[in-house]
Amino acid sequence: MKVSILNIGDELLIGQVVNTNAAQMSQMLTQAGMAVSGVFTVGDLSEDIEKYLRHCLSVSDAVLITGGLGPTKDDITKKTLCDFFGSELYENEEALENVRRIVASHGRELTEINRLQAWVPRCCTMINNVLGTAPCMWFETDDRPSKVVVSLPGVPFEMVNLMETEVVPRLKAHFRMGAIVNKNVLLHGIGESFLSDLIEPWELALPENIRLAYLPQPGLMKLRLTARGDDSAKLQSQIDEALSGLYPLAGQYIVGEDAESLPELVARTMAGKTLATAESCTGGNIAAKLTALAGASGYFRGGIVAYSNEVKECALGVRHETLVRHGAVSEETVREMAAGARERLGADYAVATTGVAGPSGGTPEKPVGTVWIAVASKEEVHAELLHLTGRRAQIVERTCNAVFAALLKVYNKWV
Amino acid sequence: MKVSILNIGDELLIGQVVNTNAAQMSQMLTQAGMAVSGVFTVGDLSEDIEKYLRHCLSVSDAVLITGGLGPTKDDITKKTLCDFFGSELYENEEALENVRRIVASHGRELTEINRLQAWVPRCCTMINNVLGTAPCMWFETDDRPSKVVVSLPGVPFEMVNLMETEVVPRLKAHFRMGAIVNKNVLLHGIGESFLSDLIEPWELALPENIRLAYLPQPGLMKLRLTARGDDSAKLQSQIDEALSGLYPLAGQYIVGEDAESLPELVARTMAGKTLATAESCTGGNIAAKLTALAGASGYFRGGIVAYSNEVKECALGVRHETLVRHGAVSEETVREMAAGARERLGADYAVATTGVAGPSGGTPEKPVGTVWIAVASKEEVHAELLHLTGRRAQIVERTCNAVFAALLKVYNKWV
Repeated sequence: MKVSILNIGDELLIGQVVNTNAAQMSQMLTQAGMAVSGVFTVGDLSEDIEKYLRHCLSVSDAVLITGGLGPTKDDITKKTLCDFFGSELYENEEALENVRRIVASHGRELTEINRLQAWVPRCCTMINNVLGTAPCMWFETDDRPSKVVVSLPGVPFEMVNLMETEVVPRLKAHFRMGAIVNKNVLLHGIGESFLSDLIEPWELALPENIRLAYLPQPGLMKLRLTARGDDSAKLQSQIDEALSGLYPLAGQYIVGEDAESLPELVARTMAGKTLATAESCTGGNIAAKLTALAGASGYFRGGIVAYSNEVKECALGVRHETLVRHGAVSEETVREMAAGARERLGADYAVATTGVAGPSGGTPEKPVGTVWIAVASKEEVHAELLHLTGRRAQIVERTCNAVFAALLKVYNKWV
Repeated sequence: MKVSILNIGDELLIGQVVNTNAAQMSQMLTQAGMAVSGVFTVGDLSEDIEKYLRHCLSVSDAVLITGGLGPTKDDITKKTLCDFFGSELYENEEALENVRRIVASHGRELTEINRLQAWVPRCCTMINNVLGTAPCMWFETDDRPSKVVVSLPGVPFEMVNLMETEVVPRLKAHFRMGAIVNKNVLLHGIGESFLSDLIEPWELALPENIRLAYLPQPGLMKLRLTARGDDSAKLQSQIDEALSGLYPLAGQYIVGEDAESLPELVARTMAGKTLATAESCTGGNIAAKLTALAGASGYFRGGIVAYSNEVKECALGVRHETLVRHGAVSEETVREMAAGARERLGADYAVATTGVAGPSGGTPEKPVGTVWIAVASKEEVHAELLHLTGRRAQIVERTCNAVFAALLKVYNKWV
């Protein structure tokens, strides 16, 4: 079953906003077993919306549209869809009730402009958007079998909630899709081509209804197994069996399962323990990634961003002599940073980074990409030297993932 | 002059990668005075690439293509373009030299697969990609006036470098575009609709060749003035004159000019001074945003992510009594955090945040979105209470921008 995505909004065409909606929608659709055949981004122009909607319908079974649902005159998606389907707008009771509730929760009065949000074309099924005032609209064409057009708000968290709770389940039902079971495995320390060689015999022996996807990120490899069939329970045990064959080949690189990212795994692993951070070259990114997930306060005590040597000394207790003798980017320094953070911030575990993220600051002995990381536990301090390539942001990203992987390994006593 | 963007890659259609290229290219093209009429994302399928290239050429003057230029058999953009233009591939000397240099810099031998990267269609102009092995290719159609098709690598930093140094200047020359001058003004503390009402008389009186764009971000408003004409110097003075009329109306909200983001302004302002951070609810994001810009070590000493109360006490010296009496989210606490960070990390200025980012943790007195921020200087500690709306990530984003704006104001003695 093929889906096209049509993202509408002038702000996308001037580069003011990055189109994260397309990636999030594609990910959700792919995981539900649907194939995204194309993503089209056009401005708030009625004739463009109509033209590309017509095109999308000609190449796919369903079209998901985002954006252009605001109450201002720039936003013309609703009117355009209404005309496209030869329908007329009416005030929907349930949508109005929702708008009223949201406006009241902000302590404001319902205005005429607010009220306009509750008007929808008669021919569509209104899907209530509990997080926002713009309703989601579900249209079906006269084709046999009928195709589906869904109009969603462009606000990312409203779109995600509607996709998860309403649109994806309804699409599955409408197109009578079979069962699908996904499984993620996260690996660290091996590149795509080496991994692919290593697990080739296993991959070739996978049952025909199980597909494998390589999803590399900077410093992290995500493998996704997708099983399709009729019976979820059966698919689940099929996946479990397949997975048991992966560990003998690549187990040393596997850091966890069933997570989209390493911070998710760290949060799960650290439950009941406490963690502190000491960051130099990652400049706060490790702490920011951990605290981006709600509930981080359950295990994360805090961290020190020790960008200058003075802060390494005064806030982490790195010895002046260590910095002078070995330099800021050294095994000795990173060990003292991790141990200092663990002790001073009173945590069970602490992680530390110090390195040259570039673009300047490299030397022949310690070129850009030279990074030391460490994990301190009650028992020991584990340190690793990384030689990373890429630009500043990628080096930081790769370092963060290396730190999360090292923490999981130390915690699980794999190192 | 109209441009279409065609992004190629299966990884974009499964949502593995967010299409940041489209936004970056759109921004650069818009600032150069070109209009992006649509962005199309398709998979690595020859027939799709050809179909959408044909379509893009029918609706625009130039088509910029990214991706599908790797040496593996999945990557078919080059072959498809070669066929589309009825040309044949040959080994380009300059491209080969570049590939050889890059392979050697990684200490590796040139392989046959590396060498394939240097093959390009005879009919195109090869534009050397100094940062990567995939050359950029410039094609012109037989139309009168001729249209342009450019194939760029999908690796973001390679694409950006080629756009800046080669593609945008060549497009300007090919389409004989006039001069264009842009000016950014950053404002804080006022929403789009209020600002628009406030500056309406000024906006209506702008010369016809100057356009104004509102570019809102969470907790920040960017206004962009774009002047078009023949003579850059004249446009510059026209912009300066226009801008002088904005200050009497909205000067109190203006935090700076000629920057894309507040961290950029902070970096410029802090030159010769030092800064430290003390973050609770922002969890390291302020430090991460500041250190994302190369050269941050010139002014940024470091920071404390004081997520737990114990860390607020032990690392920042917030008094236990203050936390017990007023709570972690209070004016008293944020003031002690900022003062503590400034003193302990030995900086001229320090900023601090403490608040409820949600989704849980809110109370009737301090609901989600209640955030205290502070800026400490040698002379004083300035504190502000924010009442923010949105989800966790947005509250963090808005808090960061409020902190940067407050720092600039304190530094410039506007508060």
